[in-house]
Amino acid sequence: MKYSIIAIGDELLIGQVTDTNSGWIARHMTPRGWDVNTVQVVPDDAEQITRAIDRAFAQTDIVLMTGGLGPTKDDITKPTLCRYFGGEMVLDEEVERNVRQVMERRHLTLNEYTRLQAMVPSSCRVIQNEMGTAPLMWFERDGKVLVSMPGVPFELQGMMERAVIPQLMARFNDGEDIEFRTFVVTGIIESALAMQLDGFERNLPHGIHLAYLPEGGIIRLRLTGSSTDARQINDDMERLSRQLHDILGGHIIADGDKKLPEILGERLRERGLTLATAESCTGGNIAHQITGIAGSSDYFKGAVVSYANEVKISLLGVSEQDIIDHGVVSEPVVRQMAEGACRAIGTDCAIATSGIAGPGGGTPSKPVGTVWMAAKCGDRIITQVKQLPGDRDRVITRATLEAQLLLLSLL
Amino acid sequence: MKYSIIAIGDELLIGQVTDTNSGWIARHMTPRGWDVNTVQVVPDDAEQITRAIDRAFAQTDIVLMTGGLGPTKDDITKPTLCRYFGGEMVLDEEVERNVRQVMERRHLTLNEYTRLQAMVPSSCRVIQNEMGTAPLMWFERDGKVLVSMPGVPFELQGMMERAVIPQLMARFNDGEDIEFRTFVVTGIIESALAMQLDGFERNLPHGIHLAYLPEGGIIRLRLTGSSTDARQINDDMERLSRQLHDILGGHIIADGDKKLPEILGERLRERGLTLATAESCTGGNIAHQITGIAGSSDYFKGAVVSYANEVKISLLGVSEQDIIDHGVVSEPVVRQMAEGACRAIGTDCAIATSGIAGPGGGTPSKPVGTVWMAAKCGDRIITQVKQLPGDRDRVITRATLEAQLLLLSLL
Repeated sequence: MKYSIIAIGDELLIGQVTDTNSGWIARHMTPRGWDVNTVQVVPDDAEQITRAIDRAFAQTDIVLMTGGLGPTKDDITKPTLCRYFGGEMVLDEEVERNVRQVMERRHLTLNEYTRLQAMVPSSCRVIQNEMGTAPLMWFERDGKVLVSMPGVPFELQGMMERAVIPQLMARFNDGEDIEFRTFVVTGIIESALAMQLDGFERNLPHGIHLAYLPEGGIIRLRLTGSSTDARQINDDMERLSRQLHDILGGHIIADGDKKLPEILGERLRERGLTLATAESCTGGNIAHQITGIAGSSDYFKGAVVSYANEVKISLLGVSEQDIIDHGVVSEPVVRQMAEGACRAIGTDCAIATSGIAGPGGGTPSKPVGTVWMAAKCGDRIITQVKQLPGDRDRVITRATLEAQLLLLSLL
Repeated sequence: MKYSIIAIGDELLIGQVTDTNSGWIARHMTPRGWDVNTVQVVPDDAEQITRAIDRAFAQTDIVLMTGGLGPTKDDITKPTLCRYFGGEMVLDEEVERNVRQVMERRHLTLNEYTRLQAMVPSSCRVIQNEMGTAPLMWFERDGKVLVSMPGVPFELQGMMERAVIPQLMARFNDGEDIEFRTFVVTGIIESALAMQLDGFERNLPHGIHLAYLPEGGIIRLRLTGSSTDARQINDDMERLSRQLHDILGGHIIADGDKKLPEILGERLRERGLTLATAESCTGGNIAHQITGIAGSSDYFKGAVVSYANEVKISLLGVSEQDIIDHGVVSEPVVRQMAEGACRAIGTDCAIATSGIAGPGGGTPSKPVGTVWMAAKCGDRIITQVKQLPGDRDRVITRATLEAQLLLLSLL
């Protein structure tokens, strides 16, 4: 099934807010066999919205629309949809009740603008928003469906899962089975990977294809197959998975669409090991990523972000003399940070980083992007230095990833 | 000047990668008086790309295109552009030299796929990519311009700043002056803010408008004015800024488009104060946000992420009895965490959090989303508890923001 997405909002077009909704929708619809045809991002402008709907319906029968439903004056989506699908703006009493309840729950007083949210086109079927005030609206005409949803990611996600996805599945069902297999690959660049998989790709059976999804140091490979014969597609996928493992060996660090901290967490949990981090240039981002995984408290005990040298010395027991002799961005320092983290926090494993994220602080021998990392697991400790490209954000992000990969190589 | 953006890539449409390029481009072009008409996100598909270009040129004379230039087989942007603008694919020797140099710098060997990057349509003017291997291509026909750029954010950003923006400015110049004023507002919801500013908005002079840019607990207000009379617009903006401050008072925490950790950093620096964090449920994210600001080492000394209770006790000196008596998510614990952070890390100020990010761990009296926070500055210490909505990610993100706002209220 093909569908289009329209994301509405001036804030998206001036770059103040990034449209993450389209990606979320795609990630949750694709595995169900629904493919996005195109995404259009348009301003809060009646003419542009109308044109976008025309273009979307010219290519697909289903349009999912996000945003443009806020209470301030620049939001004009509802009247535009009312003109497009006909009818008039009417007060929906259930929406009004819902807005009132949400506002009361948040201890806010009802005002003129919030009450406007209860006005909806008479041509739509309202889906009550259980997570916020802006109602969802389902329009249908000549077999074409448009669903207008709030732009607040939390509300969109909750209501898609609770109402919109089930209702779309019930309304449209073409009987094809879709199967996915994802593999997380590291230690090889995209072009080299493509060369290694050249023969594999050429021999893929009809209806199955391979996608490369590179993202900063990690490449996800995704096999997608669709068929009315669920048994056949499953057999093919099993066989192709084994082939990929044979070709790529240790480059595959996980089967399934998993994030690195999730893979790391699984390995630690399997082995009954605990983890701490000691972070300088990554500033707590490794701990943040690891604790982003639900249940991480089973293996993650804590972190010391030792941004200042005094903290490296006092809390992690790094030798002051070594800082003087080798500099704070050095192998001895990062090694002692990892050891200090295990000792201070009482864990089996540790990750440590010390580097120059920039823009300042670089020297000819240690330019911006130089990052020393250590990983410790029991008695084993390994270190590496990387020269990471890019600005401050990118150096921090990449160091966060490389340091986790370093520990993974020990597990 | 109006322009369109086309972002190309299957990975964007299945939600694997979020298109942050369009937002970046908009943020850097808008202040120069360039408005995005629409953004289209399309797959690596020749027909869809062609259709997107047609649609974009139907509305604007300038199209900025990102992505679709990777070395793997699914990338078909270049041949599509060649068919669209005419000519044939030719080898660009300078690009080949550049690819070779970049690969050597990264210690990679040149292969068949990477060499393909040196093939470009003869109808374009090549802009050498100084940050990567995929060349930028400037097409021009009948007064319409299309610039094709790499999708890797780091390369796109670097090359936009070094080459594309200056060349677009030189090529198109309409003589209008644009001025922006941004104000960061907290402690008021969007609808209430809109009511307070109702009269102000109604009386805005011609050519000046106000935009609301809400983002999780913070609302940015942006005044935009455009005119050929730079002096007049500047005077108007000054007057309107003063009016906004008169109406909103303390709700405005900063003038200018600043991030919260940046505002916090400025206040700390002004007062010569140092900061530490003690984080449980935020897992290092506050430290990560604060150290995301260049120069933060001037005031930020470090953090203890005390995910496990033992770490709260051993490194931060939290009373074990208080954890037993009040629970780990409680006022006494978070207060002692803040005090312990100042003591252990040796700072004037501290932020502390302890809460239940979910999905597990909630109880009837302390449901998921309950977060205790403390902020300490010298002798003053304040605490608050918030009931934050949403999933794990959202609770962490919001607690990170609320805890920083709490400290800001002390500065």
